[in-house]
Amino acid sequence: MIQDVEIRQPITVEEAVKKVMAHRKQGEIEVVSFYDCDGRRLAEPIIANHNIPSFDKSPYDGFAFKAELTQGASLDEPVHFEIVDHIGAGELPTKELSGYEATRIMTGAQIPEGANCVAMFEVCHAYEKDGKQYIAITEPMEQGENIIVEGSEVKEGEQLVPKGTYINPGVKALLATFGYAQVKVAKKPHIGILATGTELLEVDEPLEPGKIRNSNAHMISSQILRAGATYTYYGTLADEFEPSLAKIKEVLTEVDLLITTGGVSVGDFDLMPEIYKALEADVLFNKIAMRPGSVTTVATLGDKFLFGLSGNPSACYVGFELFTRPIVQTMLFNDQPYMKRIKATLAEDYPKKNPFTRFVRSYITYENGKVYVKLAGMDKSNVVSSLAHSTSLLVIPGGTDEFMAGSEVDVLLIEDHEGQAKF
Amino acid sequence: MIQDVEIRQPITVEEAVKKVMAHRKQGEIEVVSFYDCDGRRLAEPIIANHNIPSFDKSPYDGFAFKAELTQGASLDEPVHFEIVDHIGAGELPTKELSGYEATRIMTGAQIPEGANCVAMFEVCHAYEKDGKQYIAITEPMEQGENIIVEGSEVKEGEQLVPKGTYINPGVKALLATFGYAQVKVAKKPHIGILATGTELLEVDEPLEPGKIRNSNAHMISSQILRAGATYTYYGTLADEFEPSLAKIKEVLTEVDLLITTGGVSVGDFDLMPEIYKALEADVLFNKIAMRPGSVTTVATLGDKFLFGLSGNPSACYVGFELFTRPIVQTMLFNDQPYMKRIKATLAEDYPKKNPFTRFVRSYITYENGKVYVKLAGMDKSNVVSSLAHSTSLLVIPGGTDEFMAGSEVDVLLIEDHEGQAKF
Repeated sequence: MIQDVEIRQPITVEEAVKKVMAHRKQGEIEVVSFYDCDGRRLAEPIIANHNIPSFDKSPYDGFAFKAELTQGASLDEPVHFEIVDHIGAGELPTKELSGYEATRIMTGAQIPEGANCVAMFEVCHAYEKDGKQYIAITEPMEQGENIIVEGSEVKEGEQLVPKGTYINPGVKALLATFGYAQVKVAKKPHIGILATGTELLEVDEPLEPGKIRNSNAHMISSQILRAGATYTYYGTLADEFEPSLAKIKEVLTEVDLLITTGGVSVGDFDLMPEIYKALEADVLFNKIAMRPGSVTTVATLGDKFLFGLSGNPSACYVGFELFTRPIVQTMLFNDQPYMKRIKATLAEDYPKKNPFTRFVRSYITYENGKVYVKLAGMDKSNVVSSLAHSTSLLVIPGGTDEFMAGSEVDVLLIEDHEGQAKF
Repeated sequence: MIQDVEIRQPITVEEAVKKVMAHRKQGEIEVVSFYDCDGRRLAEPIIANHNIPSFDKSPYDGFAFKAELTQGASLDEPVHFEIVDHIGAGELPTKELSGYEATRIMTGAQIPEGANCVAMFEVCHAYEKDGKQYIAITEPMEQGENIIVEGSEVKEGEQLVPKGTYINPGVKALLATFGYAQVKVAKKPHIGILATGTELLEVDEPLEPGKIRNSNAHMISSQILRAGATYTYYGTLADEFEPSLAKIKEVLTEVDLLITTGGVSVGDFDLMPEIYKALEADVLFNKIAMRPGSVTTVATLGDKFLFGLSGNPSACYVGFELFTRPIVQTMLFNDQPYMKRIKATLAEDYPKKNPFTRFVRSYITYENGKVYVKLAGMDKSNVVSSLAHSTSLLVIPGGTDEFMAGSEVDVLLIEDHEGQAKF
C-alpha cells in the first residue's frame, strides 16, 4: 500500500516547450466551400489572379471625356460635350468617344475608349438643346484625372496573405474577390479527451457525496475549439489499470492526439505513468519547474502525442495553452504558433515567493495607452471560477520574490489569433 | 436622365449610434445542449447550486487524523497512528476515526469523520508492525491544517458570471461543475444580406469585363458570424426598382434584420432611398459626418432594422461594426454592446486633413507595456486587401489636421469579446 515516491527531475518550461515542439509537424489540407471557411486557416496563400481594378474605372458618378479638349476652359469660355452614352456600374461602354463627346458614368464603371478623365457630376453643367444632352465644363481637366487605373490597387500575381492566415472577414472578402469558391484550408486536428478519476461525475449526473463533476475535460474541449481543432470526449477512466490501458489504446487509433486529465502525479491512483510504460510511449518529460502544472507530462507514440495534463483545473488549462496549443497551431500551418507575449504593468500586488515560474490566470486592461494585467481571481489552483475571466497568463519568473503593483511583467495573450514565432 | 441631387443633412456618428440604439431590444432565449454552447452568450447568470468544495476535502495525498493528539510530537517523541482506512478521490470514508486512528487519503478525497487535519504523505513515517500499518508523526499539527473546507471556494447561491457572458473555456468549466447539461443561451439573431449592383458577380462566376465579384456581402457574412449572429445570403439585386422592392419585402418576413450593401448614395442607380419610401420605413438617418461610410443609412420597419451599408468595402465594414454590431450584441444580452475603446499611440504618420471623423482600418501592437496602432494599409476606400489585417478601427476626430507618429489616439477593438457599455 505504501510505495516509494518516484523522484522526478524537473525541467524548465522553455525546455519542455522545446521538447514538445521538436516533434511538431504540419497538418493535412482539406477543401471546404467558401461559405464554410470562416475561422479556418488557409492552406495556401491568396494570390491575386487578376488586377484590381481589372479595368480603368471611375471613382465617382460623373462624365468621362478627353481631358485635352478642356484646356483653357473657364466660366466665360466653357467647353461643351455632347452626352452620347450612359454606363452604369457593371455595364460596358457602348461607344468609343471621339471629339467633343462625353459618357455619363457611374461609380465603379469602366472608362470608355476615347476618354481619359472623369469630371464629377457636381462640377458639370448639364443642359438639353434640340433634344440632345450636353455638359459644359468650366475648368481644365488633366489626363488621368479621377480614373482608377487597372491594377493600381492590386497587381495580378501579388501575394495578399500567406498560408496559415486565420480567415477573418477581411480575408473572406479577398477570397470572394478572387473567386475562391472552394478554399484549401488546414484540416482541423482531431483530439481525443479522456478524464481520469473515480471521483468524476458527468455534467448530467446528480452530485454524490465525495464526488465532483468533471469540469476539466469540458474546459479542455472548449480550449480545443478555440485553438482551431475538433475533439471527441471519450468519458472518464476509472482508476483501474487494465481497462484504462485498453481504452487509451483504442482511442489512439481514432485521434491525432490524446489529452488525458489527471492521473499524472505520483499518488497511489495515478495510473498514467504506468500506462506510458505499458504503451512504450516516449515520455518527453513528467516534471516541469512551474506552477501550476508541475506534473504535466507529454509523451509521443509513433506520430501521436499524449498530453497528460494535471487534474487540477488551472494546471490543466495552462498545460493545454503552453504545450498543446502550439502543436495544434503548427498543424494548422500557423508559423506563429505560440501565444503572443507582451509586457504589461502589474495592476495589483502579487505578494508570493516564486521558487518556480508561475503562470497566473489574468486579464489585460488598457489605461491611457498602457497595458495593465489583473489577476483573474485568487490563484488557488482549484478555484475554477477565476478561469471564466481569464484572457491572459501572467508570467512570474521563478527564483523571484513578490511582485508589487506597478512592476513590469510578461503576459501571454490567450485569445489573440496572431500568435508569435518564438515561445 | 439627369436628376436633382438630393441634399442630405449629415449627423454625427454619436447621434447616429444613439438613434439606432434607441430601437434596440433584447433577443430571445433558446436552450442548447452543454456540448454545443461554446461561443454563445448566457441567457441567465450562472449561480452556484452547491458549495465548492461540496465536502471538506484534502488538498494532498496524505493521512487524516485528529490534530490535538499530535501536541508535543517531536522526532524524539513521535505520535503513532494506526492506519484503519484508505480513501481514494471519489471514494467515501468507510470509518469514523477514534483515538489514534488515521486514514490514508488521496488528493481531493473527503475528510473522514473524527479527523480534522491532513499530514502530507512526505512528512509521515509509515511503517508496519504485527501486520498492521502505522504512521509516526514528528511535529505537532493544527486543527484544520491542510483541509479545504466545504464552501471555501464558492458558496451555494453565489452568482459566478452574469447573463450575457460569452461562453469561453472557463465559463464552460463552470457550467460543467454545476451540472448545466442544458444551457439557456441567447438565440442568435438571423440577418439577411442582399447586395445591390448590376456589376456584381458571384464568387463562383468568371470575371467579366466591367464587372467585379461581390465581396462586401461575404465580408459582412463573416462579420455577422464574428458578432455572434447567423445569416442568409439572398444574392444580388439588379438595379431595378420593382423586383428589388418585392425581394426586400419577402426577405423581411424571414429575418430579424436586413443588411443591404450599396445603393444608398444619390446616384442614378441608387435604389435604396426609393425603396425605404415605398416600404414606408422610418429612415433614422442617411448621411453621417464620417469617413468612410457617410451615406450609411439605417431604417426601421415595425420591429425590424434595415441597415443600408455603403457599397464601398471599408465603409461597409465600418458601418457594420459601428451600427449593426451593438444591435446584435444587445439581442445577445450583452450589456456592453459597443466595441472597446482604448487609447493608443499612433505608430506612423497619418498626414491627412480630417474634416469629418474617420474610422481607419488598423491593428494594435504592443511594445514595452504601451499600445501602438498601425494602419492596416493605404486607406483608399476600395483597397480590400487592407481589411484582412484589421483588428481595430483608429478613430480620427473630425475638424482636425494631420496626426503624426507619436500622437495619442482612440482605437476601437474589433475582436474583443468584452466590449463596453458606452459608445
